[in-house]
Amino acid sequence: MQDIDLIICGGKALFMDNNNTCLDNVAVAINASSILAIGKTQDILSKYTAKKTINAKDSLIMPGFVNCHTHAAMTCFRGLADDMDLMDWLNNYIFPAEAKNVDPHLAYWGSLLACAEMIKSGTTTFCDMYIFEDETARAAKEAGLRCLIGEVLFDFSSPSCKTPDEGIAYTRRLADKWQDDPLINIIVEPHALYTCSPALLRDAKKIADEYRLIMGVHLLENQSERDQLQEKFGKSAVAFLEEIGCLNERLLAFHCVCLSADDMKLFAKYGCKVSHNPSSNMKLASGVAPVPEMLKAGINVGLGTDGCASNNTLDMIREMSTAAKLHKVARLDPTVMDAQTVVRMATINGAKALGMGHLTGSLEIGKKADIIILDLNKPHLTPIYSEYSHLVYAANGADVDTVIINGKVVMENRQLLTINEGDVMNEVRKIAVKIKKSMNM
Amino acid sequence: MQDIDLIICGGKALFMDNNNTCLDNVAVAINASSILAIGKTQDILSKYTAKKTINAKDSLIMPGFVNCHTHAAMTCFRGLADDMDLMDWLNNYIFPAEAKNVDPHLAYWGSLLACAEMIKSGTTTFCDMYIFEDETARAAKEAGLRCLIGEVLFDFSSPSCKTPDEGIAYTRRLADKWQDDPLINIIVEPHALYTCSPALLRDAKKIADEYRLIMGVHLLENQSERDQLQEKFGKSAVAFLEEIGCLNERLLAFHCVCLSADDMKLFAKYGCKVSHNPSSNMKLASGVAPVPEMLKAGINVGLGTDGCASNNTLDMIREMSTAAKLHKVARLDPTVMDAQTVVRMATINGAKALGMGHLTGSLEIGKKADIIILDLNKPHLTPIYSEYSHLVYAANGADVDTVIINGKVVMENRQLLTINEGDVMNEVRKIAVKIKKSMNM
Repeated sequence: MQDIDLIICGGKALFMDNNNTCLDNVAVAINASSILAIGKTQDILSKYTAKKTINAKDSLIMPGFVNCHTHAAMTCFRGLADDMDLMDWLNNYIFPAEAKNVDPHLAYWGSLLACAEMIKSGTTTFCDMYIFEDETARAAKEAGLRCLIGEVLFDFSSPSCKTPDEGIAYTRRLADKWQDDPLINIIVEPHALYTCSPALLRDAKKIADEYRLIMGVHLLENQSERDQLQEKFGKSAVAFLEEIGCLNERLLAFHCVCLSADDMKLFAKYGCKVSHNPSSNMKLASGVAPVPEMLKAGINVGLGTDGCASNNTLDMIREMSTAAKLHKVARLDPTVMDAQTVVRMATINGAKALGMGHLTGSLEIGKKADIIILDLNKPHLTPIYSEYSHLVYAANGADVDTVIINGKVVMENRQLLTINEGDVMNEVRKIAVKIKKSMNM
Repeated sequence: MQDIDLIICGGKALFMDNNNTCLDNVAVAINASSILAIGKTQDILSKYTAKKTINAKDSLIMPGFVNCHTHAAMTCFRGLADDMDLMDWLNNYIFPAEAKNVDPHLAYWGSLLACAEMIKSGTTTFCDMYIFEDETARAAKEAGLRCLIGEVLFDFSSPSCKTPDEGIAYTRRLADKWQDDPLINIIVEPHALYTCSPALLRDAKKIADEYRLIMGVHLLENQSERDQLQEKFGKSAVAFLEEIGCLNERLLAFHCVCLSADDMKLFAKYGCKVSHNPSSNMKLASGVAPVPEMLKAGINVGLGTDGCASNNTLDMIREMSTAAKLHKVARLDPTVMDAQTVVRMATINGAKALGMGHLTGSLEIGKKADIIILDLNKPHLTPIYSEYSHLVYAANGADVDTVIINGKVVMENRQLLTINEGDVMNEVRKIAVKIKKSMNM
């Protein structure tokens, strides 16, 4: 018998490995941060004894969700303004509210609130883009969430960086500071092609290459952006990115609602990745990304919630439901985006999109123990014919009972163990009072 | 001081009355089945003492949701088959599974499970269409849910009725049996124009007129149905319904995905009602109903989940989120279907669609006390700028904490008080084992 740290046992498991293994009565043996063994409960219990055992009877064991695109601190602006024309929303609400209120204090508490919400709905890894991202890294570190953290880069000044060069320097500091951290990883994030000069994009690419980091960018979110960039470059935005040497397997593009067939060929050729964010695309009326076509072209597509100003939740289970249904109705074909495909997007394919496919996204020996346990003993999840179907079409974030990240239990029986939920909510409520005042609300 | 049965106090309240009243620190005084008074907590507490007081601090008090279209007993088939071509799904899964398995036992337990799920996600009134509906009425009565119950009418035989005349007779028995019940109401429900002859539709209309009942019918769910009916009648299905005298303010049409501008004019002229079921329309790839146009035409539109085979949840909060976002992306306009409009569809306008606008759907003196209390003290509902926004874009069914129907507390702190949840789930699991066997699964 080997002494180890943690055993989860007795549940049905979706491995999300290459074979989509799905087994009953599974146990997972975890030591330190990693999955040591996984198999039938009786086999695991005959080989290992653990400091702690979690009984997953009547539950589903699966890898935690990977949220490929969000702006965590924007929880502070959740519901500030909705149902508006995009330019009205941005210019009269979001931008002024940010300019007047975002500081390290807001970035930290808003991010910590996002971490609480993400853990409570089963996300174990997220990719973030915002300002004062060192505060988001600090919040994620405290919460125990795995993440990819990127300071947004603009041609113009932001509350944290006065110039593009300051943004690049901030990114370099992040990369140096967190380079050996087990949870915090850094991404280089030029905001978009309509807010970053070619020079800034090249500088971003240079630092991404130097540190071997993923580069993330908002791309072709709606038709107006596509038309504007086509006119500016005299070619498609993707062809322009190829020209300046930015297409490679470490490019992660957010949204890609208006990716053309030719753009997809380039993405597939270079191995570029996509984060699909259907709720945000619907709420902002951006359009429907051609995801079934991307998948057919061989592009790796992950799933993201986008920030709380435009979704307004970080619940990846709801995002899966939206992704599965939106494409069916958009092309009047109920066979596209089946449940299993969508669960893969939200787990292993998301991990691959973030360059973390070797670390997380599936239950496999040697991978980090990023695992969630969902309580299936509920009316709305009864009876069960297919766990994939329930995850995508019937479950919600509140069905996640227990969350383990990097081998550590961060939520058990819906109680957060790394975050004082009441304190975080109170701090963000105080911030919201200031935001309302600043907006004369 | 007047002694009464129940006071809910200290919460923020959305009245959903004609003025969309929204007040802080509200109390609702309830006696027997009705709302006796509603106002500021201190005013109510100075006039009434109650047998029971529910503290709604940090909570939202609002009318319960009205689900305008479902097939409750189909919880038994939740997730049996998804992501398939419609005819494959119907002919090879749903129809044979129903023919082999639906009996009074399944209808009762499946409906009771649906009632548990509906109460747990804040629905207080539902409109049902299925077979053996007397069993659904029995389940709803036990659960304490307000409902509109209709035995589905076909030209062909169903497990409960061999002929159309038997279906009409079943409906008559339902109407007689439940006519004085405070919760159970009856609706006349010919299935659709492609499954009911004009003679059956006329018979259905006759009994609806005789008993002054609502008549509900699936109508124009997708393009193929529209084309088929156009060819069959040589005119639009709605024009045909006018011709046979079926259009009036007691007609409730489910889906209406393919309602034309002329159809809408007829619906508006006669005061016909619509149940919009966006999740089902998306999942089955039926299309996007022209709801903003219906509203502009002055048609009363309620919201429904449809049955669990095609949604697969009965959560009206998720349905609101879907309704708000689907129409924005479908017409690339983020201003359509704002949050308040959608909450009205899910409450007062749903009640009006079911002919129950005088009874339920809003918090008003004299109306039945059909009230839900949502816990707002949660990370994903923090901070709060707009309760409407949170309901539609951030909340989920599990945020509903307490449910009162017809003055009776049927759930408190998420504990069901009228249904033994464990027993119901176990019975439906046994039924699912039989269903799987019957389908060689």
